[in-house]
Amino acid sequence: MKAKVYVKLKNGVLDPQGQTILSSMQRMGYDFASDVRMGKFFEIEVKDDSCKADLEKIAQSMLANPIIEEYSIEFGE
Amino acid sequence: MKAKVYVKLKNGVLDPQGQTILSSMQRMGYDFASDVRMGKFFEIEVKDDSCKADLEKIAQSMLANPIIEEYSIEFGE
Repeated sequence: MKAKVYVKLKNGVLDPQGQTILSSMQRMGYDFASDVRMGKFFEIEVKDDSCKADLEKIAQSMLANPIIEEYSIEFGE
Repeated sequence: MKAKVYVKLKNGVLDPQGQTILSSMQRMGYDFASDVRMGKFFEIEVKDDSCKADLEKIAQSMLANPIIEEYSIEFGE
């Protein structure tokens, strides 16, 4: 199965990449969006969901910067 | 509501960042993972899901590189 870790900037933290994409969309004539935030995710192939606690540690120490980013973990597939 | 566009490398395309994370996890003693793939996502604030066709164009032309990446679009929240 797959564990998915989603990492994104906390609300309130400026996201220049997202802002650039929003500006580009508007310049291209797409005006349906009011905000764009960018994030990253990790698809991790695992045997079962018993690794959740370990994944939390990995997310905090390696995948996300907990000062400015938040993460969530999902299991699926 | 939010449109979410997930972009990841196609299967078969090498993912050095994912491989580095996998190696680091193993070096730290976490051996439950057999593969790590990294991707990015975009949370786009929209009024409704009528923008799906436009989003497809934006994903193809701006958010993903269709030669090596694939994308999926979800609406939620």
